[in-house]
Amino acid sequence: MSKKVSFEVNGRNYNPPSAPIVVICIDGCADEYLSAAIVKGYLPNIAKMSKLGYHGLARGALPSFTNVNNCSICTGVSPLKTGICGNYFLNPETGEEVMMNDPKFLRVPTILAAAANAGRKVGFVTAKDKLRKILSKGLKGIAFSSEFANKATIEENGIDNLTKLMGDATPDIYSAEASIFVIKAGVMLLKEKKADFLYLSTTDYIQHKYVPEAEEALTFYREIDTQVGELLNMGAIVGITADHGMNAKHDVEGKPNIIYLETILQKKFGTDVKVVCPITDPYVVHHGALGGAVTIHIKDKAKVEEVANFIMNIEGITEVHNKEMSEKKLELAKDRIGDLFVLAARNVVLGRTPEYHDLSGLKRPLRSHGARYEEMVPLVVSNPLTELYKMKAVSDPRSFDIFDFVCNGTIVK
Amino acid sequence: MSKKVSFEVNGRNYNPPSAPIVVICIDGCADEYLSAAIVKGYLPNIAKMSKLGYHGLARGALPSFTNVNNCSICTGVSPLKTGICGNYFLNPETGEEVMMNDPKFLRVPTILAAAANAGRKVGFVTAKDKLRKILSKGLKGIAFSSEFANKATIEENGIDNLTKLMGDATPDIYSAEASIFVIKAGVMLLKEKKADFLYLSTTDYIQHKYVPEAEEALTFYREIDTQVGELLNMGAIVGITADHGMNAKHDVEGKPNIIYLETILQKKFGTDVKVVCPITDPYVVHHGALGGAVTIHIKDKAKVEEVANFIMNIEGITEVHNKEMSEKKLELAKDRIGDLFVLAARNVVLGRTPEYHDLSGLKRPLRSHGARYEEMVPLVVSNPLTELYKMKAVSDPRSFDIFDFVCNGTIVK
Repeated sequence: MSKKVSFEVNGRNYNPPSAPIVVICIDGCADEYLSAAIVKGYLPNIAKMSKLGYHGLARGALPSFTNVNNCSICTGVSPLKTGICGNYFLNPETGEEVMMNDPKFLRVPTILAAAANAGRKVGFVTAKDKLRKILSKGLKGIAFSSEFANKATIEENGIDNLTKLMGDATPDIYSAEASIFVIKAGVMLLKEKKADFLYLSTTDYIQHKYVPEAEEALTFYREIDTQVGELLNMGAIVGITADHGMNAKHDVEGKPNIIYLETILQKKFGTDVKVVCPITDPYVVHHGALGGAVTIHIKDKAKVEEVANFIMNIEGITEVHNKEMSEKKLELAKDRIGDLFVLAARNVVLGRTPEYHDLSGLKRPLRSHGARYEEMVPLVVSNPLTELYKMKAVSDPRSFDIFDFVCNGTIVK
Repeated sequence: MSKKVSFEVNGRNYNPPSAPIVVICIDGCADEYLSAAIVKGYLPNIAKMSKLGYHGLARGALPSFTNVNNCSICTGVSPLKTGICGNYFLNPETGEEVMMNDPKFLRVPTILAAAANAGRKVGFVTAKDKLRKILSKGLKGIAFSSEFANKATIEENGIDNLTKLMGDATPDIYSAEASIFVIKAGVMLLKEKKADFLYLSTTDYIQHKYVPEAEEALTFYREIDTQVGELLNMGAIVGITADHGMNAKHDVEGKPNIIYLETILQKKFGTDVKVVCPITDPYVVHHGALGGAVTIHIKDKAKVEEVANFIMNIEGITEVHNKEMSEKKLELAKDRIGDLFVLAARNVVLGRTPEYHDLSGLKRPLRSHGARYEEMVPLVVSNPLTELYKMKAVSDPRSFDIFDFVCNGTIVK
């Protein structure tokens, strides 16, 4: 048991029970992954959470990408406030396209840092180090990634000797084990009493490759479930959500449905129209930087509406918003996006030009995310909800309310 | 066993196995209803279908209303071709607002009629008689509703003496029993060998009232499941989908989130702007004719764009499409809608004026449907899918592909 502390961050109060708190973000976990595995009996522990606690759907942030949603989950606010509107963006201050990994881009403090400041022992584990980097901003606690676990130092990560503690080598980032390791690390941190307030965030390598009913996906989820069981056995209050869902982006022959938007736009409007793919990150082998959302930079602002109308007429495009509407309807920070923000249909991805995207690493039919159809994610809580939070659970809850649900909304026996 | 027949309708070939074919449309069945009941052990038969056959999500037709999707499911094509874009519309030929119940409004033949013409014994049962009326167009077979079961005649319904056959009185249309009766009728038709090709369509009274984890919803689904078990035991190939999902449309206090759009628009633009609510039907007690989609008629066509921009700026509105875009993006028939088509956010409904909607029958917090967030529905098939249909199942399948899946895509042992 931890001491009972309360804290306030980004306009919300958190009054976590003294029991260990664990929030898990399963990257790319559309609810279909859970339901397929539950019905086949692969997830006894998560099924128990669903039965005894709560299991419903929550709306994530758009675009439905990893950094965007992990930052919202860890701060409790939308991208409008976090400023993280993609993994990657064209920085208007420098004119350069850069990864949004640097903590300087995150505009609000995290729940993790606030919990640590209030006296909780915080443990934060990710698969990809990029996320660890941005979200350990201001955190006095433990924060490491499976990617660089073997390099963890007390100075940088608040922990070292991980190879010894985990009894496991640092797994390959393109593997199921990179994610399993994250949850195992959470189990270790609780067991060793090194932390009592955890955020565990996996990677979506498996979901990009396999449909929910594939044996590889089912086995992956069973291993996650086993670790969740360990957390529950230690008395943790566990919340599970996802950063985004995942959909097939190919036709019945397995050929990807790609709209190379920059090619189309430059042919029509010239080279002053530029497409930026905010799914881009250092790990693109399994999706070739092809996602369901892109942003468009247009030099001649007088042309913005014409370009918008042109794009909206393309089959496979579902939404086109200018800066103002991107702020109002998509909750995006205007200075972190281009002049237009574009979302694609359920089975379509948006690209720049055929040359820009390397599909040679794609060994299986393309699955990806980024738009409206990957916006809904599971919200699973191990304990029964209070009456107020039962109402919140149906009133369009957000995935980034998960810390609120787990800290403020559960009944602890 | 029926004789093996094939038929073609609306550009698609159907080669159903000779086993009984049963397609069930559970009105308002968001997948959360199935997953909540499955994890709690209420649905042994549907769980078995999910495990041994297929269970995933399919995209319905927009607006996510009952007539729209039942008509698409029974024809295999979108509202663009069926012409059924709502339960209710302003008929441009007469200038009058009317129910879209009349078979004359349906522009394409049904799969049911085609199957009957090819020699299958078709049985079609609905909860609401409005649906029976429109979808029994051209059908040489059995077609009746639980609403008027006691009035069924050979001449009108292809069957009579239902009270005796069913051992059940005609249930109240506002009851769970109105839906259970539909599936029970299917069981009776198979048992009595009166039909071997069935479409069973329930009503969403329970889903409008109860969240998935409510005891009332769970019990309802258990009763559905028991009847599904009977169908499976008789060797039927069963497919289950829904016409639309269902979401809470209220805040945490239970107060409905309603945008009275006609009031707002007439204040700004005068009385020449008119809102039509296509959810309207003769059975509105449980939702007050409040849904997630409306269409706008604007006398002065020069104002259409200005009105569109004005609406898009209202909080709680997610999409506004003109006629052309409604056709392209929503698959709607231009002559069956107004000048604009408007979709609302996950927890918001659109109304006309406060006077127009009678909320006195609403005894519980409002739940409804109509827009994007109720578009995704379950697609469950009792038998394993062929390799081709496994690919189809992930390539953005539509709920109105369900007859295709069941007839053409299953492996029958």
